Amino acid sequence: MTLHADSSPDSSPASERTTVRRLAERGAYDRATIDSIIDEALICHVGFVDDGRPFVIPTIHVRIDNTLYLHGSLRSRLLSVVGSGEPVGVSMTLVDGLVLARSGFHHSMNYRSVVMLGRGRGVDGDEKRRALDAIVEHVVPGRTRDARGPNDKEFAATRVVAIPIDEASAKVRAGGPSDDEDDYALPIWAGVIPLALTPGAPIPDPLLGEGIDVPAYVTNYGRKC
Amino acid sequence: MTLHADSSPDSSPASERTTVRRLAERGAYDRATIDSIIDEALICHVGFVDDGRPFVIPTIHVRIDNTLYLHGSLRSRLLSVVGSGEPVGVSMTLVDGLVLARSGFHHSMNYRSVVMLGRGRGVDGDEKRRALDAIVEHVVPGRTRDARGPNDKEFAATRVVAIPIDEASAKVRAGGPSDDEDDYALPIWAGVIPLALTPGAPIPDPLLGEGIDVPAYVTNYGRKC
Repeated sequence: MTLHADSSPDSSPASERTTVRRLAERGAYDRATIDSIIDEALICHVGFVDDGRPFVIPTIHVRIDNTLYLHGSLRSRLLSVVGSGEPVGVSMTLVDGLVLARSGFHHSMNYRSVVMLGRGRGVDGDEKRRALDAIVEHVVPGRTRDARGPNDKEFAATRVVAIPIDEASAKVRAGGPSDDEDDYALPIWAGVIPLALTPGAPIPDPLLGEGIDVPAYVTNYGRKC
Repeated sequence: MTLHADSSPDSSPASERTTVRRLAERGAYDRATIDSIIDEALICHVGFVDDGRPFVIPTIHVRIDNTLYLHGSLRSRLLSVVGSGEPVGVSMTLVDGLVLARSGFHHSMNYRSVVMLGRGRGVDGDEKRRALDAIVEHVVPGRTRDARGPNDKEFAATRVVAIPIDEASAKVRAGGPSDDEDDYALPIWAGVIPLALTPGAPIPDPLLGEGIDVPAYVTNYGRKC
């Protein structure tokens, strides 16, 4: 059962350092694929080195054109490191299904993932404001039309950093199992269990005032971009 | 809208280096919480340093007692680094819902995440065989009863590495929005959109032989541990 464990980060355009080395047939270098995975993923995992050790931290992101934005507290170590321009790694992964082959060895997962490398920078002013709005829209499209925007205090209390998306690649696995020829005769069920991040019924805040309808962007929420 | 961006990795037992520094009320140090998140997560994101840069790669994992196991190809750079004993970071994140507050600033996400630090080692023999079975069982509980186990060639072609779970912490956010007092009067819908990784109807392999029933562990598949 293999995923990215047998792969290496790669780039778009592919550089020697980062070209997919394992299961190259799963490497997808086109930018539209990379962007669609970044946009559908709610969160990313960011890697940074602190005191010689590689930390991995989940956080919300948004892409605007060729730039990935992260946000958080002024005191966040992650954002401090990313904003300093030290090298960072980022990955987003969407799990689409479980692939059950006849042999344990050929079990797999259907997924779409992006691996990025880059150096970040701090962001302020109009770019910061656009990024904060975009982060809300990334998570719940349509929400900025309703939500109260940041006041000066909130704006000042939030740090935003940017990472250019110029060294990134995607890997995609889709479809059913692929077994060894001899195994097809075994009386073992094989196939795919599809998986998707699925919304449940919205839960209104108990403190919600009277006569406030559930917005359509909540009722119809879905991650597919 | 904040997640782990404003936090830092931490440890169980908490060490000075890794104690949760931001939003400390969300830090959950007990081992049962940590284990349940690791076990429910299908994949983790592993960070390692190569050529001075922090790569982050998604991969499947399994926990056995106090040890996290990863597997993949002999040629995997990730597994080579982890097996070498160099420091690595690991994170697993379960997204449970989107928290819509009246203000953009107080938007949040319900999630359960683990952040680990450690040094890995290579695994062979009986421990490797147990880990490979456990990885299949981690993804699809019950599957090893049916699937053909690894033959000698497959066993030799797979690398397994282990990371002790002795520097890890969990963060958990649950519940509804928390708004600024003045904002509760605003006519803005607020609440939670629950999210869960949900199975769809199983898709049989078109090459499946006649009379092979769908196993109950496929029909009733779910991630909750």
